[in-house]
Amino acid sequence: MSDNHSVIGRSVPRIDGPEKVSGAAKYTGDLKFPNMLYGKILTSPHAHARILSIDTSEAERLPGVKAVITHKDVPTLKYGLSPARWDESIFCSDKVRFVGDKVAAVACLDEDTCYKALKLIKVEYEVLPAVLDFLHAMDEGQPQVHEEYARNINTEIHQEFGDVEKALAEAHHVRTDTFVGQRTYQSPIEPHSAISMWDGGKLTIYSSTQSPHYFQHYIAREFDMPMGDVRIIKPYLGGGFGGKLEPTGLEFAGAVLAKLTGRPVRTFYDRAEMFAHNRGRHAQYMEITTGVDKNGKILAAKANFLMDGGAYTSLGIASAYYAGALLPLTYEFDNYQFDMFRVYTNLPACGAQRGHGAPQPKYAFESHLDNVAADLGIDPMDIRIINARRPNTVTPNDFRVNSCKIKECLERVRVMSDWDEKKKNLPLGRGIGVATGSFVTGAGYPIYRTDLPHAAAFIKVCEDGTAATLYTGSVDIGQGSDTVLCQMAAEAMGYRYEQMKIVAADTEITPLDFGAYASRQTYMSGAAVKQAGEEVKRQVLEMASVMLGLPAEDLDCADGQIFSKSRPGKSLSFEEVARKHFVLRGPLLGRGSYTPPKLGGNFKGAAVGTSPAYSFGAQVGEVAIDEETGEITVVGIWDVHDCGKVINPRLLHGQVHGALYMGMGEAVWEEVLFDDKGRIKNAELANYRLLTAVDMPPITSEVVDSYEPSGPWGVKEVGEGATNPTLGMFSNAIFDAMGVRVNSLPLSYEKVWRALKEKREREEDEARRKPEARRAEAPLETDGAMPVYANPS
Amino acid sequence: MSDNHSVIGRSVPRIDGPEKVSGAAKYTGDLKFPNMLYGKILTSPHAHARILSIDTSEAERLPGVKAVITHKDVPTLKYGLSPARWDESIFCSDKVRFVGDKVAAVACLDEDTCYKALKLIKVEYEVLPAVLDFLHAMDEGQPQVHEEYARNINTEIHQEFGDVEKALAEAHHVRTDTFVGQRTYQSPIEPHSAISMWDGGKLTIYSSTQSPHYFQHYIAREFDMPMGDVRIIKPYLGGGFGGKLEPTGLEFAGAVLAKLTGRPVRTFYDRAEMFAHNRGRHAQYMEITTGVDKNGKILAAKANFLMDGGAYTSLGIASAYYAGALLPLTYEFDNYQFDMFRVYTNLPACGAQRGHGAPQPKYAFESHLDNVAADLGIDPMDIRIINARRPNTVTPNDFRVNSCKIKECLERVRVMSDWDEKKKNLPLGRGIGVATGSFVTGAGYPIYRTDLPHAAAFIKVCEDGTAATLYTGSVDIGQGSDTVLCQMAAEAMGYRYEQMKIVAADTEITPLDFGAYASRQTYMSGAAVKQAGEEVKRQVLEMASVMLGLPAEDLDCADGQIFSKSRPGKSLSFEEVARKHFVLRGPLLGRGSYTPPKLGGNFKGAAVGTSPAYSFGAQVGEVAIDEETGEITVVGIWDVHDCGKVINPRLLHGQVHGALYMGMGEAVWEEVLFDDKGRIKNAELANYRLLTAVDMPPITSEVVDSYEPSGPWGVKEVGEGATNPTLGMFSNAIFDAMGVRVNSLPLSYEKVWRALKEKREREEDEARRKPEARRAEAPLETDGAMPVYANPS
Repeated sequence: MSDNHSVIGRSVPRIDGPEKVSGAAKYTGDLKFPNMLYGKILTSPHAHARILSIDTSEAERLPGVKAVITHKDVPTLKYGLSPARWDESIFCSDKVRFVGDKVAAVACLDEDTCYKALKLIKVEYEVLPAVLDFLHAMDEGQPQVHEEYARNINTEIHQEFGDVEKALAEAHHVRTDTFVGQRTYQSPIEPHSAISMWDGGKLTIYSSTQSPHYFQHYIAREFDMPMGDVRIIKPYLGGGFGGKLEPTGLEFAGAVLAKLTGRPVRTFYDRAEMFAHNRGRHAQYMEITTGVDKNGKILAAKANFLMDGGAYTSLGIASAYYAGALLPLTYEFDNYQFDMFRVYTNLPACGAQRGHGAPQPKYAFESHLDNVAADLGIDPMDIRIINARRPNTVTPNDFRVNSCKIKECLERVRVMSDWDEKKKNLPLGRGIGVATGSFVTGAGYPIYRTDLPHAAAFIKVCEDGTAATLYTGSVDIGQGSDTVLCQMAAEAMGYRYEQMKIVAADTEITPLDFGAYASRQTYMSGAAVKQAGEEVKRQVLEMASVMLGLPAEDLDCADGQIFSKSRPGKSLSFEEVARKHFVLRGPLLGRGSYTPPKLGGNFKGAAVGTSPAYSFGAQVGEVAIDEETGEITVVGIWDVHDCGKVINPRLLHGQVHGALYMGMGEAVWEEVLFDDKGRIKNAELANYRLLTAVDMPPITSEVVDSYEPSGPWGVKEVGEGATNPTLGMFSNAIFDAMGVRVNSLPLSYEKVWRALKEKREREEDEARRKPEARRAEAPLETDGAMPVYANPS
Repeated sequence: MSDNHSVIGRSVPRIDGPEKVSGAAKYTGDLKFPNMLYGKILTSPHAHARILSIDTSEAERLPGVKAVITHKDVPTLKYGLSPARWDESIFCSDKVRFVGDKVAAVACLDEDTCYKALKLIKVEYEVLPAVLDFLHAMDEGQPQVHEEYARNINTEIHQEFGDVEKALAEAHHVRTDTFVGQRTYQSPIEPHSAISMWDGGKLTIYSSTQSPHYFQHYIAREFDMPMGDVRIIKPYLGGGFGGKLEPTGLEFAGAVLAKLTGRPVRTFYDRAEMFAHNRGRHAQYMEITTGVDKNGKILAAKANFLMDGGAYTSLGIASAYYAGALLPLTYEFDNYQFDMFRVYTNLPACGAQRGHGAPQPKYAFESHLDNVAADLGIDPMDIRIINARRPNTVTPNDFRVNSCKIKECLERVRVMSDWDEKKKNLPLGRGIGVATGSFVTGAGYPIYRTDLPHAAAFIKVCEDGTAATLYTGSVDIGQGSDTVLCQMAAEAMGYRYEQMKIVAADTEITPLDFGAYASRQTYMSGAAVKQAGEEVKRQVLEMASVMLGLPAEDLDCADGQIFSKSRPGKSLSFEEVARKHFVLRGPLLGRGSYTPPKLGGNFKGAAVGTSPAYSFGAQVGEVAIDEETGEITVVGIWDVHDCGKVINPRLLHGQVHGALYMGMGEAVWEEVLFDDKGRIKNAELANYRLLTAVDMPPITSEVVDSYEPSGPWGVKEVGEGATNPTLGMFSNAIFDAMGVRVNSLPLSYEKVWRALKEKREREEDEARRKPEARRAEAPLETDGAMPVYANPS
């Protein structure tokens, strides 16, 4: 647990910085190959329709069209990211299930011809009634999205730990609240694209993927090829946030088009298509009941959730599980019940998005907890501290938590944000809110069932020792993992970061790694990198032992210098020893891998532990509300995180800022809107209210001193966890400012204004009946029952 | 010596075949980078001149010009490929030494602007008298090319082994002949280009290089950087033949231009510039004396050579050494004297070209030996068989020869070519000639002094065992080494070639390898690859041993199948075992390296052994001469080679064909011509008489069964050795056809016609004096004293 580190813990510059700021970094869309064709996918204009016929003959005759394909030209094996539900096909054959569903594709000499060709494909549809309102998707008489899944139930989860009913019966106070979360979309600045090409029977795909390994696995499966014949390469990548984790039609159709034409084919989604295909945040209906004792200590909680999965499964089985499973992390209680239905609708499929499943339930729970605190007259900060999880505990659903400093986070953010003073002194219209969050540090189980390690790494030291190359299959999607892993490699080797090089995310060159999702890389890829670095160090020390005539155990190495622990004068440079090793013993190479431990806990015979470690954090936000318009101004945000040992403080706080940015957007501004035909109304960045840099408030981000014993050097995650408190924090700050509770996301100006209007009307009404006007003591509820999308317009 | 191989010995398809035939393969010149500038070098119009001033101001003002550099802007450290003579600078500061010497460079937005900008650089010269005739370069009163090297002597070599004078005195017959070889140029179809870019203090250069390692070493040295901060990447490469072995002005100036502009800079030589910069074949003056006994057994040989080095050293020290050192390989004799001067002239520098130093001396020696045979009335085939070297012998200059089947090659080519019948029956105007050749299998010593291994390799097996990647620093320059090394890797692993992938020739990703020169890769890189493959195999067998419950020693692996040697039924697939290894023991990785053994022999205290193994070969060619025009038609060529174990027969015979093609060109058609100002007269492919595919005669290529005990699986070289007999073979076939000996290269139609004319005139003269005309019995000599270039025109 020593903090005697040379490389980790320092805000070294990003290893990809110069390439990126100079514009030299090539993203998938920047790549050009000789004879490359352009491919586009024809998508359904209907939310639900039977395909009666497809006529491609006119498109095929258009000059510049090199191939037109439909379901007849492609494998029909159903695929998906969750092996529990493979329900998607490369192209629809029987019917289409959402506006955007894949029907056909073309490969042409240029983009313009693609768009012309798509218009020439004649598809005859029989339009069917569509399921657009997930709240009623399970109702009797609703259309069936997939015939195989009765009542449109994609998955259901029913778990009870402890005795919830008994605990609620014994509670001092029991309260139920209902909330609804909206659909949002990851909005990576780089839209997804892929370039597919064949070399004999071998397929190479350049793709903006978060996981070359899963792409390789699923593409090999779909085309019935050995995995070794599929090569996935990730060029520079401009943001993923969960949306680039699964192979898409771009890869599947692109591979077929490339095979048929014998040419490289570039396929891509434009911004509008990204909204339909990128598997964003599920909308959720969330009913939460808790019972507390008179001090506010939580005795039991019940979560009854319903999730809008859209037309396909994607990673939604995991989203549904995470939505409930991660809820009992930040607060300690013994009795927990979680019921979830994920339903099919005729809307775009939803999947993983930063914080995966957790931000909306956290919004609901944190809002609800503030309501409970208000019911009991307890300060919101106090009720959280009272309930804060302690380290080395086990959640009711059997997750083992090692390190946990949520209490310290709350105590620190209380001071940083000047909570107690503000709580007393802020005027009406100004408010302060607190919320907590937690997230997995990597998934303990792979997405498809395999016993393979989750990460591996090699390190080679060049012949004269002046550089070392890290080979990792991990994926820098902009978050800086290449930098962090090079720091970890250098630290483990006793080397200098400035001399590190990295080769990453190319299944042919780099070793297995599951990629960037579930906040796993610093911890899991890092564990493999550490092992590889230590193998290098061991060889270097053994060589130095011969050179110095001292036992290897007496030697250590840091920052490029090998030294005797007992005799201060005795030292050698890493370079000279590495070079000597190369000369006398051959190439200096280290290797490492990481397999998660068997996770504790099981429920009804199934293992339910989900991650080897969990991050924690607390956020306070201060808002100012314009009573006339409902406009929300964010005065400031304070974040304190327990993310274990910090490898690169600047990158860490960058992750916190990014997570806050996305959380803010989801809290107040962002929402994917649909018309009554299931068509997205705002599938472009002009009308999808993505925040920009100028919208950002002052943010103060700190970490607590933390060490996770299971992680390399004590690390945990930060990239996703910091999103989780933000939505609830905004809800609570608005509540504090105005005494109104908006029970559906986003907490838009309009909803706040409506809530204020209702409150004013009620107060006026009360005032008419009872002269002494007073500030509301209990929260007022608004439109918690209906999502704002899929309404008749 | 077992021939029980699964992968080697088979003509598997080239691993780069599909990429190349589909046009997908990217060569350096195909690469584009954002913001890339174009760079060109201003060269000297004078063969020898003092630089009085350089004014770049007008060029700098030209719109689109981003940088103009001269000697003031670059490091002044002298460089070269032979560390024995560093005599070249990035730019000339005091004087220019050949037409094409580097004076300044520009970086511009496009190529056109480069050419305009070069014209605007004003250089004031004081023209100096130039050394253009190497035969007189050492004469008193000649101008000095480099002030430091008196009498223009770049290097001189004087070696005597045994007692030459005594042996000659005791000889039955002593004869001296004199020959002159011409300048030729490698003519790779891809001209040299480079793209340089900086990332902070780190330099990356994409270059059409034969040796990323030497480029890395010398570029790091020039810029005083750690080697690890210089990355050299070789994209696909279109031919090297020795001309792309050393870093050029393109890399040095390109790196400075990139540094100054902060942008990638593409520099390139056009075809004409390639002739001036590509360090082609030296012209040589060669006087050879041998003494033989009455049976034609060689007793002693003396070689007195003079070499035109041009203005700089390049690899010329080695060329000079090889010219004499390789002569005593094919024939056995004990007494040998070699004297060589390599002189500076004010012509482009010469360096390594296929067969490096040896083809011209071999032309001279093989022509001379035929003259000796004619003197004694011995069949040219017989005199070679009589003198043929035996295996496990040591040359007079102390080169240890292990395997050697030159005698078998001669005996086989005699049969194949129908030598004896043709010798008897061919009419005047048709002739048949034989010659032998030999070449090093890699250089035993590195080009710069270092104790590093000469080659290293890694092999990773992918997680499910369905593919394996070979990482090698070796360089496929078109010869097919990537394919051959993948075969060797698969053979050593017990794997299938079809599942191999390769990453090569990128100093950051691949391990050290000295690259493609001296015919070293199959043998030396192959040795490292074999070791890496065997390390993989050992781990696989150990894993399989656990899985099968059988001792590892009882197991073997071939072609992807692991099997028990004692129990036929017991087997596992390589894939399942490799996968299990990954799961239980981490990544499956092998590593290997190769360091040449200490070579035997020394001369005056210096080690003189030069290679661990030598190839041998014999060629017969049949020509038809048009007496009226001197035109030479090649009727057929038969080649039999001793190149050790053959890894890929198709590629091997491809190398023989290519070597013959280049040898034919040098023998009869190719010559770089200069005017009296030292300017190349034919620096384009239209007038430099490169042969084309349609010029090629029928070629029959065979190998003898051979095994070199020091090489992996018994391999030796083939790529360069097959060039060495060709020139002499042509000389001897022409001699046989017409009874004339042309003593200078190329053996052009004109020279043959002139020799025939002289012969006819002499015969007519003799006929006038003596009525019985007869065919000449002894060779007639022609213009052996003067090279055809640098003549006053």
